Amino acid sequence: MRSRILSFTIFLILFLAFIETPSSLTSTADVRYRSAPWDPPCGLTESVEVLCLLVFVADVSVKSYLVGWAQFRMNLWLLAYLAVLVVSLMDWIVSLSLVCQEALDEPQDPRPGPPCPSAQPHPRWSLAVGAVRAHRHPTLLFMNLPPLRIRRLLRPFFLMQNSSMMKKTLKCIRSSLPEMASVLLLLGVHLCVFTMFGMLLFTGKEQGDGQDRERLMYFRNLPEALTSLLVLLTTANNPDVMTPAYSKNRAYAIFFIVFTLIGSLFLMNLLTAIIYNQFRGYLMKSFQTSLFRRRLGARAAYEVLSSMTAEGEAHRQEVGVRPQDFLQVLQKVQLDSSHKQAIVEKVHSYGGDLLPADEFQKLFNEFDKRVIKEPPPRPEYLSPFLKSAQFVFSHRYFDYLGNLIALGNLLSISVFLVVDADVLPEDRDDFILGILNCVFILYYLLELLLKVFALGLPGYLAYSRNVFDGLLTAVLLVLEISTLAVYRFPHPGWKPEMLGLLSLWDMARLVNMLVVFRFLRTIPSVKLMAVVASTVLDLIRNMRAFGGILVVVYYVFAIMGINLFRGVIMAPGNGSLAPHNSSAPCGSFEQLEYWANNFDDFAAALITLWNVMVVNNWQVFLDAYRRYSGPWSKIYFVLWWLVSSVISVSLFLALILENFLHKWDRRSHLQSLAGDPDTTCQ
Amino acid sequence: MRSRILSFTIFLILFLAFIETPSSLTSTADVRYRSAPWDPPCGLTESVEVLCLLVFVADVSVKSYLVGWAQFRMNLWLLAYLAVLVVSLMDWIVSLSLVCQEALDEPQDPRPGPPCPSAQPHPRWSLAVGAVRAHRHPTLLFMNLPPLRIRRLLRPFFLMQNSSMMKKTLKCIRSSLPEMASVLLLLGVHLCVFTMFGMLLFTGKEQGDGQDRERLMYFRNLPEALTSLLVLLTTANNPDVMTPAYSKNRAYAIFFIVFTLIGSLFLMNLLTAIIYNQFRGYLMKSFQTSLFRRRLGARAAYEVLSSMTAEGEAHRQEVGVRPQDFLQVLQKVQLDSSHKQAIVEKVHSYGGDLLPADEFQKLFNEFDKRVIKEPPPRPEYLSPFLKSAQFVFSHRYFDYLGNLIALGNLLSISVFLVVDADVLPEDRDDFILGILNCVFILYYLLELLLKVFALGLPGYLAYSRNVFDGLLTAVLLVLEISTLAVYRFPHPGWKPEMLGLLSLWDMARLVNMLVVFRFLRTIPSVKLMAVVASTVLDLIRNMRAFGGILVVVYYVFAIMGINLFRGVIMAPGNGSLAPHNSSAPCGSFEQLEYWANNFDDFAAALITLWNVMVVNNWQVFLDAYRRYSGPWSKIYFVLWWLVSSVISVSLFLALILENFLHKWDRRSHLQSLAGDPDTTCQ
Repeated sequence: MRSRILSFTIFLILFLAFIETPSSLTSTADVRYRSAPWDPPCGLTESVEVLCLLVFVADVSVKSYLVGWAQFRMNLWLLAYLAVLVVSLMDWIVSLSLVCQEALDEPQDPRPGPPCPSAQPHPRWSLAVGAVRAHRHPTLLFMNLPPLRIRRLLRPFFLMQNSSMMKKTLKCIRSSLPEMASVLLLLGVHLCVFTMFGMLLFTGKEQGDGQDRERLMYFRNLPEALTSLLVLLTTANNPDVMTPAYSKNRAYAIFFIVFTLIGSLFLMNLLTAIIYNQFRGYLMKSFQTSLFRRRLGARAAYEVLSSMTAEGEAHRQEVGVRPQDFLQVLQKVQLDSSHKQAIVEKVHSYGGDLLPADEFQKLFNEFDKRVIKEPPPRPEYLSPFLKSAQFVFSHRYFDYLGNLIALGNLLSISVFLVVDADVLPEDRDDFILGILNCVFILYYLLELLLKVFALGLPGYLAYSRNVFDGLLTAVLLVLEISTLAVYRFPHPGWKPEMLGLLSLWDMARLVNMLVVFRFLRTIPSVKLMAVVASTVLDLIRNMRAFGGILVVVYYVFAIMGINLFRGVIMAPGNGSLAPHNSSAPCGSFEQLEYWANNFDDFAAALITLWNVMVVNNWQVFLDAYRRYSGPWSKIYFVLWWLVSSVISVSLFLALILENFLHKWDRRSHLQSLAGDPDTTCQ
Repeated sequence: MRSRILSFTIFLILFLAFIETPSSLTSTADVRYRSAPWDPPCGLTESVEVLCLLVFVADVSVKSYLVGWAQFRMNLWLLAYLAVLVVSLMDWIVSLSLVCQEALDEPQDPRPGPPCPSAQPHPRWSLAVGAVRAHRHPTLLFMNLPPLRIRRLLRPFFLMQNSSMMKKTLKCIRSSLPEMASVLLLLGVHLCVFTMFGMLLFTGKEQGDGQDRERLMYFRNLPEALTSLLVLLTTANNPDVMTPAYSKNRAYAIFFIVFTLIGSLFLMNLLTAIIYNQFRGYLMKSFQTSLFRRRLGARAAYEVLSSMTAEGEAHRQEVGVRPQDFLQVLQKVQLDSSHKQAIVEKVHSYGGDLLPADEFQKLFNEFDKRVIKEPPPRPEYLSPFLKSAQFVFSHRYFDYLGNLIALGNLLSISVFLVVDADVLPEDRDDFILGILNCVFILYYLLELLLKVFALGLPGYLAYSRNVFDGLLTAVLLVLEISTLAVYRFPHPGWKPEMLGLLSLWDMARLVNMLVVFRFLRTIPSVKLMAVVASTVLDLIRNMRAFGGILVVVYYVFAIMGINLFRGVIMAPGNGSLAPHNSSAPCGSFEQLEYWANNFDDFAAALITLWNVMVVNNWQVFLDAYRRYSGPWSKIYFVLWWLVSSVISVSLFLALILENFLHKWDRRSHLQSLAGDPDTTCQ
C-alpha cells in the first residue's frame, strides 16, 4: 500500500513536466503551425508538486525512523534523498516567492510575436542564472532569461531512489566506468589521429579538385574536421563524407573505410563487451541474493518466535516455534490467500509439536509452488443435443476456426487497403468492406455467445485470451453500431465521411487490426518460435530497471535541453534568421523541415532526444543548433550521444544477452537432463 | 611449404577479379570522369587462372590419396572441392572456346559512347544467360549480354575450403540458422503488421494535410510502405519518415518510435544474442580441440616408434621409444630451431633408456614454453666518459625524451595545420615548418646513432620498437633530403610546389604523422589501458576466420552485382535517363552525386557493397537502382543487407564479446589467485 502511493507520487511528479509552463498541450510541436499552448493557472502545478514533496518527506522520515540514525548516516542513498528533498523544497519556496513571476519573465511564446534573436538567452548565461537567481532583481539584463529550476533536474532522483534494481544497475555501470573511460580514450586518440591525417590528406590544391571539394565541405578547419569524423563514427554521414574525394580517386575510400572499421565496428563494440562483462551473471546473482534474503528473514522470524516460546514455557528443553504462535502471526500478514491457505494446512499437519528450524524454513517453500487454478466447472446441460453442442464449441478446433475467420478479416482489410492505395480518398467505395465488416463482427459476437454457452461465464473469463477476445468484440460492436448510426447502412457508393483526426470508420478498421494479436498468441505454440517468444516475454519483465534508467536520463537531458535551447528554433519567415525552405541547401534542417524537433516543451524535447539517440541524420541537428544557438551546443549533443546511444544501447544489448543466455542455459540444462544433446557447435 | 603455395594460389585467383575484363585499373570509379580502363590482353588472366586451377587439382589429388577413397566419399568438403574444380575447369574451357569473344560481346564501356538504355541487359536475362551460354549463337537478342561466369562465383570456395577455422565458424552460423529464421520471421510479422497499421493510419484525406503528405511520400502503396518501414528498421531514414505526420500531430511519433523500439532495438539485438549464444566457449573449445589433437598425434607417434623398437629388439620386455630413433625422426622434421634444441637436450638427459609413454608426451610440453631471447651483450667501452655516456643513452629516460621530442614534432605539424586551414593553399608560407622539420629529423638521426652506440647494432635491432623507429628515421631522412634537393633550402616565403596526388613535401609530413605510433606503443604500459589494448591485439589475431568469411561474402555478392547491374548507372547528360544535378530532388542519388557507387568493376562494387553494409543512406541506393534497373533490384540489396549488416555485424560483435570475456576470465582468474577481489558487480 505504501509502495503503491509512493509509485503514484513519483509518477505524478515526473508527469508534471508535461504540464508545467513550457507546456506540451499543443497538437503539434512544429514551430510553423503551433498554436499558443494552454498554460496552467498560477499555483496549480506548484501545489501538486508540494503535495508530492510532502509525501517524500513523510517517506524519508519513516525510513530514517526505521533504520535509526546511526544507520542513516552511513546510507549514502538516504542522505542524498534528504539533501535532494531539502534543495527541492528551498527551490520551491523561491519559486513561490516570485508568485508566478517566472512565467512572465520567460520569453513569450514565439507564435504571437517572436522576440528578436539578439535578445535570446545565451545558453551559458542561463546556466549562470541558476546561481544568481535567489537574489536577482528584475534588471534589464536578466529580464527574460528562463530560470533554471534545479528541482526539476532533481526529480528523477526519486524514481531512482525507489528501485533497488535500478540502484544495482547503476552500480554495475559505475564499476565498468574505468574500462569504458579507457576505450573512450582510445576512441579519442583514434579520432584525433585520423583528423590530423585527414587534414593533411585533403589540403586541396587546385580549384575544383576532388581534394579541394573534400576540404571545403568536410575538412575546412579543425572543429569541422573533428565533427565530420565524429559523425562518421556513428556512420550517419557515411557515403557523403567520402563522396568528393572518392569521386576523384579510389584510394581515398581506404582512409574512410579504415576509420569506420576501427572506430565504429571495433572500438564501439568493445564498449558493449565491457558493459556486458559487468552484467554477466547479473540475473543469476540477483536471483541468489533475493533467495538469500528470504532465507535470512525466515531464520530471523524463527529466532524471534522461538524466543517467545522459550519465554512462555521456560521449563521446556526443546527449542522451536509453537504452531499456534506462527498461525497468529500469519493472520496479521498480508499474503496471497492461496499461499496462506497452503501454509496453514502444512502447519496443521504437524499437529501441536514445536516446529524445528529446518521444518520452519521448509514451510516457506510453499511460496515457490505456483498455484494452478482449476477452471471453474462447465455448466451441465441435460439435453443430449446441448451436450454435443457444448462439446463442439469448447473444442480447440472451434478456436482454430475463429482464428481462421479473423485471418480472413485481416486479409479482407489488407486487400482493400492495397486496392484503394492508388485511388484518391474521395473516390473510394467502401460498400463491400462495410458489408464484410458487419459479417465478421456478427461472427465474433456469435463466437463469444457460443463460448459463454459452452464454458459458462466464469469458465469463459478464466482464460485471459478469452477476456481479450471478448473485450475486442465488445469494442468492435460498439464502434460498428455507432458507425451504422452515424453513416447509415452500407449501400453502393457508400463513403463514410471523415471527422477529426481519425474518423469512426477508420477507427473501426484500426481496432479490427488488433485481431492480429489473436495470431501472435499462437506463436509460442510453434516449436521453432517457443524459445524466442518466451525470451521476449521474459525480457519485458526484466527490463524495468533499464527502462527506469532510460527515463531518468531522458528526463534530465530534456530539462537541460529546455533550459539551454528553448525558443532557439524559430519559424521561418517572420524575422527569424532561417531561410525559406526553397532556398535552403539540400540536407539542411530547413530543407528537411525538421521544425518540430525543438526544445520548446517537454514532449518535443523527448522526441528530439529520441531522434538524436537513433543517430541517423544527427549531423543535421548538430549543424542547425550550431547556427541557431552557438558552437557550444555541440557539447550537449555529443554528451547525449555518448550517454544515450553508446551507453544505453550497450546496456540494452547486455540485458538482452544476459536474459537470453540465462533462459537458454536453463533450457539446455533441462534438455541435457532429458538426454538431448547439447546444441552449441563443436 | 605446401600450405604457403596454396595460400598464394588462393590469393592470386581471388585477386584476378580486379584485373579481369571489367577491370578496376582506373583512377576513379565515378561514371562522369572515368577513363577507359586498361583491358588485359586476351588469354592473360585465363592462363593465370588455369595455372591456379591446376594447383588446386594437384592439391585435391594429394588429399584424396592421403585420406583414401572410402574417407574421401564421406567428406563433404572434399567432394564439394572436387565438384567446384570440375565445374570451374568446364567453365574455363567454354570461355577459352569463345577466344575472348566474351569481351567483345559485352556492352562497350560507357565512356567512349554509351549504349542506348533500351539495349541494356535486363537483370533477369543475364541470370538466364548462364543456362544458355554453352550453346548460344551470336544472335541479335543475346548479342550484348554479359555472360555469367560461374567459376568466378565459385572462387571464394577455395579460400573457405582451405581454413579449418572458417569451416568451424560456418558450422556455428549454420547451427544458429533455425533460431535466426524464427527471429527473422518475427521481424517479418512485425514489419507486415506495422505496414498495415501505417497504411490505415495514413490514408490521407484533404490535400496538403500531414497525413496526406505522409501517404504520398512514404506510404503510397504496399511496396513503398514496406520499403519505408524496412529502411526505418535500420534507422536509415529516421527523422525523415516521421516528419510529415509528426509536424501535423505529436501522436504520430508514437507509431514510429514503437516500431523502431521493437524492431531495431529489440528483435535485431535478439539476433545478436542468438549468434553469440552459438559462439560462447568457441575459443575455449577450439583451444581444447587443438590441444587434444596434438596429444593424439604425439601418442600416435609414440605407438609407431615403440613398435619400431619392438621389431628391432624382440627380446626386450619393456615397451618404449629408443631416444636415438626419436632423435633421428626429429632431424627430419621442420621445427623452430630453439624448440628443437630444447627437446634434443631433454632427450639427451634421459641417457640411453627407453622413453615410456608419459615421458614421451612430456617432451612436447617444451613447445608451450616461450623462448625468451636474451638481448645481445652491450659493447664494452674502456674510457669512463664513454661508459657514462653509454649509461645515459641506454637509460629509459632517454626513450622518454625521444617520445617528448616526437610529441613536439606532432604538435608543430598540428598547429601549422590548424593555422593554415583558413589560408588558401597558394598563400601558405612553409618556411618555419620546413626549418622545424629539418631540426626534428636531425634529432631522430642523432637519437638513432646514439642508441646504436650505446646498445651496439645487434642490441639495437633486438627490440622491434627500435627497428620501427630506425626505419621511420631512414624514410624521413630520404624524404627530407629529396625535398631539399627538389625545393632547395627553406627561405621565407618558401612554398614547395605540388606534384601529382601528394607532393613530396606532403608525403614528408604524412610520414611524420607515423610518429604517432611511438605514442600508441606506450598505451599498454598505462595500467588502465592494458587489458583493453591487449584485447584489441588478441582480437586481431583471432579475427582471421571472420575476415575470411567476410571476404567470401563480399566476393560472391560483388560478382553477382557486376553481373546484374554492370553499366546500369550512366553518366548524366549524354543520352542517359538521369536528370542533371541541379534539377534532381534533394536526397536523391543524382543530387548526392553518388555516381562512383556503381557495379561497373570489382573495386567499385566492393565500395558500393561497403556503403550499403554501413546502412546509412542505403535507401538512396535502393531508390536509384529501382529507377535505373527495375524493382527487382531491391531483392539483391535487401539480401545483402541481411547477410552483411545483420549477420556479419552480429558475428563480429559475438567474436569481440567472446575474445574479451575469454581474456577477462583469464585475467580475473589470475587476479583471484593473487588474492585480488572480483570486479564484477554484486
